[in-house]
Amino acid sequence: MAIKIDFTPKKKQLAVSEPESVSSLVNGHYGNMLKGVIHLFPDEALYLIDIRNAKCFDSSLNEYRFNNVAAAFERKKQMARYFTYKDWRDRGLIARQVSEICERYGRNSAKKYPNGSLKMDRYALLGRFYADDLWTVIDDEAVGKELYERHWFGQFGSYKAEQRGKLSKLDAYETLFLIRHANMKLENASEAEVICAAKRQHADFLHLYEVYEDWRLQGFVLKTGFKFGTHFRLYFPGASPSRADGEWIHSKHVVHCFPRASKLLISEWARAIRVAHSVKKTFVLAIPGEAKKKRTTKKKEAPQLSTTLDFLLYHRAGGGIENPKTGKPRYLMFSLSEEEHIGGEELADAIEQCKRIGLELLLAICDRETSVTYYHVKRIEVPGSKHEYYEIEWNQP
Amino acid sequence: MAIKIDFTPKKKQLAVSEPESVSSLVNGHYGNMLKGVIHLFPDEALYLIDIRNAKCFDSSLNEYRFNNVAAAFERKKQMARYFTYKDWRDRGLIARQVSEICERYGRNSAKKYPNGSLKMDRYALLGRFYADDLWTVIDDEAVGKELYERHWFGQFGSYKAEQRGKLSKLDAYETLFLIRHANMKLENASEAEVICAAKRQHADFLHLYEVYEDWRLQGFVLKTGFKFGTHFRLYFPGASPSRADGEWIHSKHVVHCFPRASKLLISEWARAIRVAHSVKKTFVLAIPGEAKKKRTTKKKEAPQLSTTLDFLLYHRAGGGIENPKTGKPRYLMFSLSEEEHIGGEELADAIEQCKRIGLELLLAICDRETSVTYYHVKRIEVPGSKHEYYEIEWNQP
Repeated sequence: MAIKIDFTPKKKQLAVSEPESVSSLVNGHYGNMLKGVIHLFPDEALYLIDIRNAKCFDSSLNEYRFNNVAAAFERKKQMARYFTYKDWRDRGLIARQVSEICERYGRNSAKKYPNGSLKMDRYALLGRFYADDLWTVIDDEAVGKELYERHWFGQFGSYKAEQRGKLSKLDAYETLFLIRHANMKLENASEAEVICAAKRQHADFLHLYEVYEDWRLQGFVLKTGFKFGTHFRLYFPGASPSRADGEWIHSKHVVHCFPRASKLLISEWARAIRVAHSVKKTFVLAIPGEAKKKRTTKKKEAPQLSTTLDFLLYHRAGGGIENPKTGKPRYLMFSLSEEEHIGGEELADAIEQCKRIGLELLLAICDRETSVTYYHVKRIEVPGSKHEYYEIEWNQP
Repeated sequence: MAIKIDFTPKKKQLAVSEPESVSSLVNGHYGNMLKGVIHLFPDEALYLIDIRNAKCFDSSLNEYRFNNVAAAFERKKQMARYFTYKDWRDRGLIARQVSEICERYGRNSAKKYPNGSLKMDRYALLGRFYADDLWTVIDDEAVGKELYERHWFGQFGSYKAEQRGKLSKLDAYETLFLIRHANMKLENASEAEVICAAKRQHADFLHLYEVYEDWRLQGFVLKTGFKFGTHFRLYFPGASPSRADGEWIHSKHVVHCFPRASKLLISEWARAIRVAHSVKKTFVLAIPGEAKKKRTTKKKEAPQLSTTLDFLLYHRAGGGIENPKTGKPRYLMFSLSEEEHIGGEELADAIEQCKRIGLELLLAICDRETSVTYYHVKRIEVPGSKHEYYEIEWNQP
């Protein structure tokens, strides 16, 4: 028998009272039970109409179809929310409203990266800066070669063929870093002129540099991530451009920066993660820039409710699925659509909320065909760093 | 013996006169011979200094090192040009100045795509438009299903699981197309409101739509390219969402739009091509929008010289390499660097120049480590279309 939903437009209530339906909905963890009646959330009602052939009527027996019900509960990004909810449910998993958050769940964790530090010898570095395409060339062969071999700054000779040529080429990040940390001089430009030229090509240059400098000072090596579609590729402390046995070392991580003040189309943002994934690199996200406002929550207060996040997600555990009766939620879902913009600030805020609540963040991106891709956001701790970083992993729940 | 280059700063001349060096340079197709003396172009002199240990002196025997010579011939994106020149030469191939273009080479061609056309039955289509996340939902199961199965408009049910649900979801491109070409009505929005909502998320919406509509009217099917990092994926005329035997058909092409008025960081632009390449799709570029000014060249006039393009490239032929003495150039190189911006207009202009000269365009993108990636631009003819499209292929010369 099809489920019958009673809709009371004035009260904005969606209720199911027929006993057989009620028990089926209780088993499926839909809605809230109140005096033998199930009260549904709009997404749940839409789902039951779409998938389980439920019928919805008001007290005068007018039928409310999917679009009618949606119209009665109009809200921001309503379909992105609904399609991601549907996808989670279609996987046999349970999603509930974030308003049900009632404790700190302690189900999030951070990954620890190794620590190191940069120790540089003293060099007399002199280069020429090419402001229009942002390279510094050092044409002193001995110095350039040592800088490359010992610290992997610049590219000596050609990429993967250091013997081809005797110049050392530094990109804009390396240039500014060596000016600031190794006293490099440029024959034709000041530090301010380098910054100005770089900002002309890349308004976010200083934010990207901030990230570059932070990792470099902890002993990591960052080189261009161009081939992997990101800002940088990352090597752990101790990496050098070639191994003793002549083998190339391969980076396992790429770093991409999404400054707080930036706004980006979701499709463009996802593209960067996709390239990294296709070359089997771990995608590390950096969100540089100052937080707009710091909120402080006292330890004992109930965690602040989310305004950005969409659903409380139960996942799998011990061969079965988690549910609100016997278990705890695992993730918070942030529902997004392909054609939507997201800001660095907004994403940082969602991550911060999850941290407070003690759950992990799951970005659910719904494409124009309503197919959903999930990305899992995991915090990274880099000893000595003042910034927070995140691994973003493609996830198939 | 090392090559000795005589530099005359006043005349901006780089000359080699020592007989043994002259004959080696003639064999290598460097510079221009004038009365027994080779006159080098700056990129050639820089290359000989960098790679062949050439030494450069003025008449007072002051040495000019790499940076000194470069400083004397300062120009726009000098290093991007030099590094791409170097890469071509390092491959044993010959690159010459574009000023040597002297004829129409007739070495370009266009790929022909199949033709078709869209024939639609009459439907009574009614949907609700969700302006905030740009979907139209048709909740009439029979109509939505037919629209999907016969013409592959919208997504009926779920992606790759049409039986899951009974709604048809149309994206903004499909919505506008069906309003314009199938008389679809929306219960809560006009055509103008759809356009306005879509432009709010995506300023280039109408340019992308122009491309979508053009292909669709020729019988091609376009769906979201989100999973492949592009605007659309493309199926040739006759495609339907599932085959008789239940097999999924796979798209072989993706379409990406780069409106003339847009400017994009090369690294962001290349990322889209890279995703397509990683999933083995052919990347089709569309440059919608009006050309700024139409230049008309009469057939018999010498082809106009390029101001954007960087080098005339000789490639391989019959087991050997092409050279200016016995052969013709194959490509025109457009040298770019990772951190540079490119405009749709500028790219369209470079393609147009190549077409006039009768050579194919090779984009050479130099990353921050001076590693060069090549992309080959090939014209596509789509019968019945008013636009031009291009296949962009990753190329290893």
